[in-house]
Amino acid sequence: MKILLTFLFFTLSLAAVSQPRGNAARMEQRILSLARFGANPEGGVSRVAYSDADIAGRNYVMELMKTAGLEVTVDAAGNIIGRRKGQNNNLPVIAFGSHIDSVPGGGNYDGDVGSLGAIECVELMNENKIFTQHPLEVIIFQNEEGGLIGSEAICGVLHPASLALISNSGKTIRQGIIDLGGNPEKLSEAVRKKGYFKAFVELHIEQGGILDQTGVKIGVVEGIVGINQWAVTISGKANHAGTTPMNQRNDALLAAAKLVTAVNQAATSMEGRQVATVGRIRAEPGAPNVIPGKVEMTLEIRDLSHEKILSLFEIIKARGTQIEKESGTRITYVSINENLPAITDKRIQGLIASSAKELGLSASLMPSGAGHDTQDMATIAPVGMIFVPSKNGISHAPAEFTSPEDMANGASVLLQTILKIDKSKL
Amino acid sequence: MKILLTFLFFTLSLAAVSQPRGNAARMEQRILSLARFGANPEGGVSRVAYSDADIAGRNYVMELMKTAGLEVTVDAAGNIIGRRKGQNNNLPVIAFGSHIDSVPGGGNYDGDVGSLGAIECVELMNENKIFTQHPLEVIIFQNEEGGLIGSEAICGVLHPASLALISNSGKTIRQGIIDLGGNPEKLSEAVRKKGYFKAFVELHIEQGGILDQTGVKIGVVEGIVGINQWAVTISGKANHAGTTPMNQRNDALLAAAKLVTAVNQAATSMEGRQVATVGRIRAEPGAPNVIPGKVEMTLEIRDLSHEKILSLFEIIKARGTQIEKESGTRITYVSINENLPAITDKRIQGLIASSAKELGLSASLMPSGAGHDTQDMATIAPVGMIFVPSKNGISHAPAEFTSPEDMANGASVLLQTILKIDKSKL
Repeated sequence: MKILLTFLFFTLSLAAVSQPRGNAARMEQRILSLARFGANPEGGVSRVAYSDADIAGRNYVMELMKTAGLEVTVDAAGNIIGRRKGQNNNLPVIAFGSHIDSVPGGGNYDGDVGSLGAIECVELMNENKIFTQHPLEVIIFQNEEGGLIGSEAICGVLHPASLALISNSGKTIRQGIIDLGGNPEKLSEAVRKKGYFKAFVELHIEQGGILDQTGVKIGVVEGIVGINQWAVTISGKANHAGTTPMNQRNDALLAAAKLVTAVNQAATSMEGRQVATVGRIRAEPGAPNVIPGKVEMTLEIRDLSHEKILSLFEIIKARGTQIEKESGTRITYVSINENLPAITDKRIQGLIASSAKELGLSASLMPSGAGHDTQDMATIAPVGMIFVPSKNGISHAPAEFTSPEDMANGASVLLQTILKIDKSKL
Repeated sequence: MKILLTFLFFTLSLAAVSQPRGNAARMEQRILSLARFGANPEGGVSRVAYSDADIAGRNYVMELMKTAGLEVTVDAAGNIIGRRKGQNNNLPVIAFGSHIDSVPGGGNYDGDVGSLGAIECVELMNENKIFTQHPLEVIIFQNEEGGLIGSEAICGVLHPASLALISNSGKTIRQGIIDLGGNPEKLSEAVRKKGYFKAFVELHIEQGGILDQTGVKIGVVEGIVGINQWAVTISGKANHAGTTPMNQRNDALLAAAKLVTAVNQAATSMEGRQVATVGRIRAEPGAPNVIPGKVEMTLEIRDLSHEKILSLFEIIKARGTQIEKESGTRITYVSINENLPAITDKRIQGLIASSAKELGLSASLMPSGAGHDTQDMATIAPVGMIFVPSKNGISHAPAEFTSPEDMANGASVLLQTILKIDKSKL
């Protein structure tokens, strides 16, 4: 028994020593360089998709990809594709990557760690003269934060009507795609069929606090929650805030305030991990001395069960109906986004876990509360997802932080996972 | 007795016949012309102070004033002053006027009726060869809707710090004054001392529904409610809307929603006619998938009693303290505007009432729930205010409407009131 354990330890150590490791200093330097594009004075970035900052950041990343020897193209949907030839280019593609767009007032790690981590894998393969059997593609998806637009296009589920939606940049999706160098009239050229990819793997910061709290280094993602978003409009009657008695008002903002409270009550009154959020609100006309006649706000619900999302929405709508009666307002809900829950490939989960183990990194299975392009990719290929710790679980905020060592660990695990997929049957 | 009544009726009829009447067609034509500046597709105007529409509307009004023979200047604060000489120019000035700026998404009558009504009085004096003993000034105050800025300047109470405030146009007050042709560095030149004005009288739409509901033609305003406004900031913690469990959030918008509800509850739970309104709200960063870390909103309270305003504010703040504890947020209140309640001059009230009576128009005493430049002017001169009906009491909205006849009635009463003031001792 002792001999066996010693042998195992020796084998693990040998493996750990011989495997390429992500270069923490290089990743940190590149994260800081990318952080300049859309930098906010208070820290973090507002690099919303299609903005000038997004376009400048993409140019920086494309330069890195070219320098790493990738053959870089922008597909018709505006995604960046960096191809590395395999030994047998008739084999399906192994793809990996993430995104570099951010939410307004976001941080420097969400998406960026996975994007730069994917490039880091290519650098490590170059430095260690590693050549895969399968061709590889590094994919930098466009507009992840605005509804997984780039991966929807690749999977052929981007609805034509979505092209007219206004993104956080103020541009329509259509205009955004044009500005990224894509062609919204030829989106079918960006679509990949089932069988094109052997697998897709995404490295990402956890965005929750589980890894940071437990000290575990690598998260093996078992599934990604579904996300439904609605545009909610509350219509009342604009009137003078001085001459309209309190009992004669149809105050759209008062009704909206009650609905915001109701959303929170509904989400917290059920068992489970579901979350519901109102993130944006606007009252019209928007002057201190006018009773708001109209309020527009968003509603987002997430859960691993699609049915639970819909039942929570029904509870909120029922409360909305009461509020309409109490306040003399009218409330409408328009679905603006729906991402179904996605489960990752069990075999790839195993390859990620064994890669981490061989590298001497602790790992544990966990769900993803955040949406990712990987959930779209799951509809056309076996997928896997690797999480690294995010300090205090903060994300979508300037205080987002992942250490250089954790970023490098993620790249190391991603590389080994790709190499294992290259050799496995799946 | 019968003889006396007949005599009275004869006298009244004679007076009614001999007195000049506002020209309804002319006033309607001018209202429609002014309505072009800042016109919204859905009706009404957004002619917020300092906007291009405001500047264009002022140019139109200044042309009317010049054509009516007034000597037109713009004072250092950006107010338009149109002077008509008196028979004795050593006497104090009798002033009358209103404003032409609107709230965002406002109507075509608030301020405009009083501004064009003042010019109508001058037209009637010209047409009827009426010359007053006292010099007259028609004043078109700048930025009434943004906090009575123009009249504050005239009364010497415009705080220098206010110049840095951002107005609804997006410009600072300072820049706005420059763009109107004023000089913010020389505001003292716009100040008028007590004794400069013999009286100030403002014609305005009621903005409430009392005249419209009762069929009374003229409102004799007995007082104007005080208005206090605060900028309220709720600070929580921005975080990811998918990965942050409901019980670990510091959601600034949820706290703000509870405060909006509390404002309404506080105002409706007290006896009296006080009103409290949240008219503007903004959540940061403002994306559907980010928990709001900060909310900025306005709070406005109005009442004829300043003490009641302050006690209502204390009740709201106490509830705010509870909300802070429940939600892990911080709420701050910064006073952005304070207009003290103002009582109109009893003698001028009487002159307005007798003018209406002589013109055969029904009149009744009433308070003003809306703030007006008249309340500032009350600090340096005896003031009066004349209301005409506003359909359904709607104002600060596109549906605002006052009939041409009611506008003309207002101008007729305003003229007679000015002529009575010219002859009275006050």
